[in-house]
Amino acid sequence: MTNQQSLSVGVVGLGAMGLGVARSLLRAGFTVHACDVRPEVLAMISAERAHPHESAAALAPHVDALIVLVVNADQTEQVLFGPDGAAQHMKPGSVVIASSTVPPHYAEDLGKRLAAMGLRHLDAPVSGGAARAATGEMTIMASGSPDTFAHVEKVLEAISAKVYRLGDHSGMGSKVKMINQLLAGVHIAAATEAMALGIRAGIDPETLYEVISNSAGSSWMFQNRVPHILSGDYTPLSAVNIFVKDLGIVLDSARKFTFPLPLTSAAHQMYLATSASGLGAEDDSSVIKMFQKLTGIELPKKDA
Amino acid sequence: MTNQQSLSVGVVGLGAMGLGVARSLLRAGFTVHACDVRPEVLAMISAERAHPHESAAALAPHVDALIVLVVNADQTEQVLFGPDGAAQHMKPGSVVIASSTVPPHYAEDLGKRLAAMGLRHLDAPVSGGAARAATGEMTIMASGSPDTFAHVEKVLEAISAKVYRLGDHSGMGSKVKMINQLLAGVHIAAATEAMALGIRAGIDPETLYEVISNSAGSSWMFQNRVPHILSGDYTPLSAVNIFVKDLGIVLDSARKFTFPLPLTSAAHQMYLATSASGLGAEDDSSVIKMFQKLTGIELPKKDA
Repeated sequence: MTNQQSLSVGVVGLGAMGLGVARSLLRAGFTVHACDVRPEVLAMISAERAHPHESAAALAPHVDALIVLVVNADQTEQVLFGPDGAAQHMKPGSVVIASSTVPPHYAEDLGKRLAAMGLRHLDAPVSGGAARAATGEMTIMASGSPDTFAHVEKVLEAISAKVYRLGDHSGMGSKVKMINQLLAGVHIAAATEAMALGIRAGIDPETLYEVISNSAGSSWMFQNRVPHILSGDYTPLSAVNIFVKDLGIVLDSARKFTFPLPLTSAAHQMYLATSASGLGAEDDSSVIKMFQKLTGIELPKKDA
Repeated sequence: MTNQQSLSVGVVGLGAMGLGVARSLLRAGFTVHACDVRPEVLAMISAERAHPHESAAALAPHVDALIVLVVNADQTEQVLFGPDGAAQHMKPGSVVIASSTVPPHYAEDLGKRLAAMGLRHLDAPVSGGAARAATGEMTIMASGSPDTFAHVEKVLEAISAKVYRLGDHSGMGSKVKMINQLLAGVHIAAATEAMALGIRAGIDPETLYEVISNSAGSSWMFQNRVPHILSGDYTPLSAVNIFVKDLGIVLDSARKFTFPLPLTSAAHQMYLATSASGLGAEDDSSVIKMFQKLTGIELPKKDA
């Protein structure tokens, strides 16, 4: 049993990541307040000693720090500033830890808006997937003032294995996350392109995976996602539509700089094509099915 | 001192890779016969106890196995079947270890042509770069008959840390190497695209490298090539034009299958654009200079 922590922490958004975060905080001894649009998930986490709330507004006055882990900037906006939003009900000086992947300019602006209300902002996107959220071992790419970091230090410690401190200003955390998503998205699409061509050329996919994993062509994503293809299991750990969104953020942000991104652009089209064919909610490794639909290659089947 | 080996081995092509291979064979106790178009390189390796020859034809009768490590299929063709080519002068049953990156259909055909002459073929492209060639720790992606593998087992052992045996037929080694090059080429181009956008967005490049190297956006090539950009040192370890060639092989081979490759195609254009701007002979990480030329971003300078 860990010691009781002095801070009271809110978690809004109990998806794959948020649920892991809430549980990591409970394990570390924090008082946790939770909110989600799905009553069944809220019931589950309250059975584990979190305090449930019907809205972000109702949760807000109870917490010293509020972790927002929803899908995108629109939902972050609703959680903080919508009709039942948290911001106007939070205690002065409390910290909003905004951890969804959002456009950097939105994160910059959010910092200013919260400061104007007497609140503090940590621009703190996360990486590592649901498994590492569950074990409290996420990577956090964060920017914010030193006093904001100090205030929530133990919270970050409870939910992550590594916190990168990327400067004093809101926006820098989201910029670094954006570059990570650019590479992650391109590498998954490249893994599907490579495996698809390999299969078409008659290479045994298991052998190809083994050789490439140990060669200069490997990537974190190749090693992580190709096993889904080999086992024929497209249960969404992270969905195709997440990269339709995230590479969309990268391309929109780069366009503001008038900055060309040939590979990101081609990869985004591959996710869009996969989503257009009805597979947007499947695992992102399903991009290989775009090749399957076009070329008729035979993909490994799921074991019976 | 290792024991004297019974086989006599030829190495044709003493470039960055071939020179390391020749030295690894000498260290392992093989009698080594060498040939290269550059007399100064040939003089250097003969000073290290290799037997120099003026042509592949002159070298051929002396060896039980011939390792061909030249730039491409055209040069491989010249070395084996040109006016001073080796093939017609080799002893019956001796083995051609063809290790250049060549189109898979060329490798398939080569196996048939050598067999018709009473010679054996190992389709054996290599990976690992000059550093691992020098230490005898390359990765070899090989296909060929079991008796061919058996005949040159100790040769492969002397020059590599890992030999993937990819089947009995010529072509399979080159197919797997092709898929590795697809990914390696796309990943280098993606690393430059990501670093360029990060620099434009105001992220410190050293910090960005550290975060990405430890995150889901990482790749073998990101970790290996981005340090060249950070140090501003574009001394060619592997040149831009190598990927102009290798992704060209991938695209040509896929076109034979009528197989679309959106990312490979976009990456190939980036290497072509970089080469077109006069940087073809620089290190392949120079693709970031395409972004520099277009957008005016400031790249890290070489230390004085």
